Amino acid sequence: VTGVADARRTGRGADPTGGRPVVPPPGERRPLGLDEIALTGGLWGRLQDTNAAATLDHCEEWMERLGWIANFDRVAAGTTAPDRPGWPFSDSEVYKLMEALAWEHGRTGSATADAALRRLTARVAAAQDADGYLNTCFGHGEQRPRYSDLEEGHELYSTGHLLQAAVARVRTVGEDDLVRVARRAADQVCAAFGPDGRAAVCGHPEIEVGLAELGRALGEPRYLDQAALFVERRGHGLLRPGPFGAAYFQDDEPVRTATVWRGHAVRALYLAAAAVDVAVERADAGLLAALEGQWAATVQRRTYLTGGMGSQHQDEGYGDDWALPPDRAYCETCAGIASVMVSWRLYLATGDVRYADLVERTMLNVVATSPRADGRAFFYANPLHQRSAASPAVEDEVNARAEGGLRAPWFDVSCCPTNVARTLATWQSYAAVAEPDGVTLLQHAPLAVRTALADGEPLHLDVETGYPEDGDVVVRVVAAPPRPVRIALRVPAWAAGATLDDGAGPRPVEPGLVAVRRRFAPGDEVRLVLPVAPRLTWPDDRVDAVRGCVAVERGPVVLALESVDLPPGVAIEDVRVHADAGVRDAPTPLGAGAALRGTVTERGAAAPGPGGLPYGPRAAGPVLREVDLTLVPYHGWAERGPSTMRVWLPEA
Amino acid sequence: VTGVADARRTGRGADPTGGRPVVPPPGERRPLGLDEIALTGGLWGRLQDTNAAATLDHCEEWMERLGWIANFDRVAAGTTAPDRPGWPFSDSEVYKLMEALAWEHGRTGSATADAALRRLTARVAAAQDADGYLNTCFGHGEQRPRYSDLEEGHELYSTGHLLQAAVARVRTVGEDDLVRVARRAADQVCAAFGPDGRAAVCGHPEIEVGLAELGRALGEPRYLDQAALFVERRGHGLLRPGPFGAAYFQDDEPVRTATVWRGHAVRALYLAAAAVDVAVERADAGLLAALEGQWAATVQRRTYLTGGMGSQHQDEGYGDDWALPPDRAYCETCAGIASVMVSWRLYLATGDVRYADLVERTMLNVVATSPRADGRAFFYANPLHQRSAASPAVEDEVNARAEGGLRAPWFDVSCCPTNVARTLATWQSYAAVAEPDGVTLLQHAPLAVRTALADGEPLHLDVETGYPEDGDVVVRVVAAPPRPVRIALRVPAWAAGATLDDGAGPRPVEPGLVAVRRRFAPGDEVRLVLPVAPRLTWPDDRVDAVRGCVAVERGPVVLALESVDLPPGVAIEDVRVHADAGVRDAPTPLGAGAALRGTVTERGAAAPGPGGLPYGPRAAGPVLREVDLTLVPYHGWAERGPSTMRVWLPEA
Repeated sequence: VTGVADARRTGRGADPTGGRPVVPPPGERRPLGLDEIALTGGLWGRLQDTNAAATLDHCEEWMERLGWIANFDRVAAGTTAPDRPGWPFSDSEVYKLMEALAWEHGRTGSATADAALRRLTARVAAAQDADGYLNTCFGHGEQRPRYSDLEEGHELYSTGHLLQAAVARVRTVGEDDLVRVARRAADQVCAAFGPDGRAAVCGHPEIEVGLAELGRALGEPRYLDQAALFVERRGHGLLRPGPFGAAYFQDDEPVRTATVWRGHAVRALYLAAAAVDVAVERADAGLLAALEGQWAATVQRRTYLTGGMGSQHQDEGYGDDWALPPDRAYCETCAGIASVMVSWRLYLATGDVRYADLVERTMLNVVATSPRADGRAFFYANPLHQRSAASPAVEDEVNARAEGGLRAPWFDVSCCPTNVARTLATWQSYAAVAEPDGVTLLQHAPLAVRTALADGEPLHLDVETGYPEDGDVVVRVVAAPPRPVRIALRVPAWAAGATLDDGAGPRPVEPGLVAVRRRFAPGDEVRLVLPVAPRLTWPDDRVDAVRGCVAVERGPVVLALESVDLPPGVAIEDVRVHADAGVRDAPTPLGAGAALRGTVTERGAAAPGPGGLPYGPRAAGPVLREVDLTLVPYHGWAERGPSTMRVWLPEA
Repeated sequence: VTGVADARRTGRGADPTGGRPVVPPPGERRPLGLDEIALTGGLWGRLQDTNAAATLDHCEEWMERLGWIANFDRVAAGTTAPDRPGWPFSDSEVYKLMEALAWEHGRTGSATADAALRRLTARVAAAQDADGYLNTCFGHGEQRPRYSDLEEGHELYSTGHLLQAAVARVRTVGEDDLVRVARRAADQVCAAFGPDGRAAVCGHPEIEVGLAELGRALGEPRYLDQAALFVERRGHGLLRPGPFGAAYFQDDEPVRTATVWRGHAVRALYLAAAAVDVAVERADAGLLAALEGQWAATVQRRTYLTGGMGSQHQDEGYGDDWALPPDRAYCETCAGIASVMVSWRLYLATGDVRYADLVERTMLNVVATSPRADGRAFFYANPLHQRSAASPAVEDEVNARAEGGLRAPWFDVSCCPTNVARTLATWQSYAAVAEPDGVTLLQHAPLAVRTALADGEPLHLDVETGYPEDGDVVVRVVAAPPRPVRIALRVPAWAAGATLDDGAGPRPVEPGLVAVRRRFAPGDEVRLVLPVAPRLTWPDDRVDAVRGCVAVERGPVVLALESVDLPPGVAIEDVRVHADAGVRDAPTPLGAGAALRGTVTERGAAAPGPGGLPYGPRAAGPVLREVDLTLVPYHGWAERGPSTMRVWLPEA
């Protein structure tokens, strides 16, 4: 229980603002801080450990190597040239790493993370202008003037990430140099873009969510007001449309009247996250309802089986309703993270566990898919179908977007690695909430919960589980007050047939929330059994791109057929599956998977249609042979060298 | 017979180089000039007339309005600024219009086309540097230096189109000012990039095909040599890869060893066209075989039912094998034209009518789809599935790429309108070839053929047909020598069941070429009957994106279901068709179409899957109702206002 133990060692108690990325106003559900909950193993424990041991250093090394951190030194030294290394938004990568370091230090007390953060803070602080403006790409020397390219300049976007880094710091160690830098930057933004300032927004939302949470963390209503102002301004055509139109940056329609997310996915979702914050802070039921409606419409018509969002490479954006091609799925890792941010806020605002269902789906099948097992390479895009095997060179190079089917160590636009880092460092924050009389466990993993109820009485729970590989989730009471308390668990939407045993034997429970309210003694157990056996999943028949296909899920894990598991000589495009023959559990080199029967289409005799085109009269059935197929967890694909892969399998 | 009559009036006879876009060295197949063949009506006659009456002026007006033509005036006046209107390649649009004007004058003797061309020639010529260099974006005043951005600068690309304009002129009126300008520009290119010059290529192939044909037209082997040098240099990594890699500009693999077309489709196809020219000029059987192999592989695995090529918006490029999504099909109009250029050259080189089959498919279903009926708006991309209806505003604005489902008057990158214009002005050039003892009719349309055989004897034919709406093609002999001659006709690959009657009654003929060799008297007829009744077409089951769907073709015309033809309240995504119930002929507002039975899925009761996602257990069949469906020619869709549309129809 490293986190909780270390948190105790550093003397921080159950501070109501302690170590939580999102803290809405007090309500029925209080998110737990890093000092109240810790991962104690399992898939997410391993990912978090690897993040701490490898990814944080990896990100710092790459940004030093490429000169993105030194950009701050050049501004401080007054040696800035018109051109500088990195895209205009490279500052934000430094800030996201700082946020990850702050959370990591908050989680474990890591002295190396703290030292790295202090070093970076000093370099960043030295680049701040006297009036608080802080950006290495604009406004110094011969650079373009401040805020002269709001569409593409990403200045406010970068500042938003600075503010989120400061939120992590103020909630783990209190106000330090980083927080002071962020305060001054936020004040400059409020002065420049406040009610009496320029009526403008940034082409890439992010300042909104940074201002909202920093306002909460510091008790500074001006920041929340500014966030609300930015949210309300958008959708009124303040930005000059680029090649992808106003929808690309959600400037086509106000947040309050939009019905679905559209345009650039990360932009849409960062904006939506901030809009939930604004709705909650203002008790704005209409705005919250609009966002809930957008979530429902987007999930129903524009979301992949993995939870991934964004089906277009061209603009990294949502496509039309039902346009969900598996092979060209963009499903950017950052869009997955942004989706988690939105769903988590909607859960906190409403208590509807559908939002936690999507958090789980997205965490396991998008976020967990990005980092390589060693934490030093990443997927940027997360397609559900890889047609051609990658060149191994991808693993050694700065990659455009890692579209090639292998994780890459760094990217030209490298938003994903640092986003993964800050998310993994806080994974357990999304796992549970405290209520006045108990705790709700939303994400199932080996966890230690050391919280206190509203009256200050401790409620300590250990969760033991092999989930998601197995479906047994055991909640053991370590300490509880001598009165009835409530322990609730999420039963995922797919988990028909789940059972709960709180001492009186297993009883069936329905998907949703299941709660046990009674007096607990130390050693008491509540056992939830989720049916994680592999199951077949079909698409709505309006999802044209996967018509005639079936996918296999195992509990919350989407599985995939990867070419390295096929018999020699069999190409993945020639495999068809027998859905009627069922699917069964199977061990795989990547953990629990599934086995099913299929056929291989023999192509020797297949002729193209008239004119050499692949179209013609209905062809006679090709020669087939039977084959056993093994499916692996999608999140682990491409860990065994270049391969082809598909999640959606055509039926025979 | 306007063209032929006017050609006679202007005094040009059957000059062996007269009015043909492509003239390979003398061989078995001699393409006919604009003075030997003319359209006399029909679909293509209407398109050609509209091009002459509206599109040529339309293009000139837009380029004046946007300042693209005035760019030449500014260079001539020495008033060039670092920035100028238009993309770097906007000069090429002026040249393509000039080419279209030259062909139009050659075809009809139009004095207005000739005058427009002369005016433009004077303005272009005034901008030419003393050493022959001619470009309005580089090399003058504070502009970037000549050839300083070969990857994206498009200087040689633009020059290539200048040379193609000059080819049109030299083959219709002989050497004039435009031809002299082009000669000097070509000489400058040869000096700069010849064997003793810089070993480089242009990021966008086009100079190669321009040099090759100008070399043929002027009998200048240096130009052909330079074309060959550019072709051979490519594929050796001479260009700095951009975000889409070296394959984007075909610099990943030499033409000679490549196995399939890849990267940016127009780039790939312009290069291939030039490579065929080089192979033919050099009698390079290995190079020709490589190109034939690339054609076959690309047609089998990377080509749409319409003949369209390029499935990715992001890079306007080919995707992986079998990645042919109908909704995100890019199928750029220019790629269709470029594909025609390649296939036509391969036909001339080999006599294989498969190439003419693809010319027909692409002309009717891509090229003819682009222009609106009034010739003043165009499709840039030609998807096979439109999910959301366009905003009518598209029709009035300069459009990014006309992705919105309506034709647009002009584009930010406006390569397609002028490309359509030059292609329509020469459509009949692709319709027939002369052989030593006869004529082969490749494209069926109302035509007047007034050619001479190798011995100088006239062979005059009139083709009368309602094709493609009906399948009767009647070839009537107007004049023929008093000895056996050969009249051959292409029987399209889809036309199983065709019959031919050369006077002795109809007899079955197989797809391919059917030839009649006998002595003909004036008034003799050869009648080919092609079974154009609507037929169902299925995709190869590796084309994942249209699995479970069927398309309807009618003769060579791909049909589409357009929402304006659906019963009120029926959404196109809810329609399923009964393929087993067959398909029958039906008149439509857009000409001959088809009718078939289908069902409408009632969505009222349809619930999303677990978690609100569109995935879950196999759903019970939704409530259905029967419906009659009418399909229209795809090339006419979106002529009746904003609509949704699909070519591939899911089966019930």
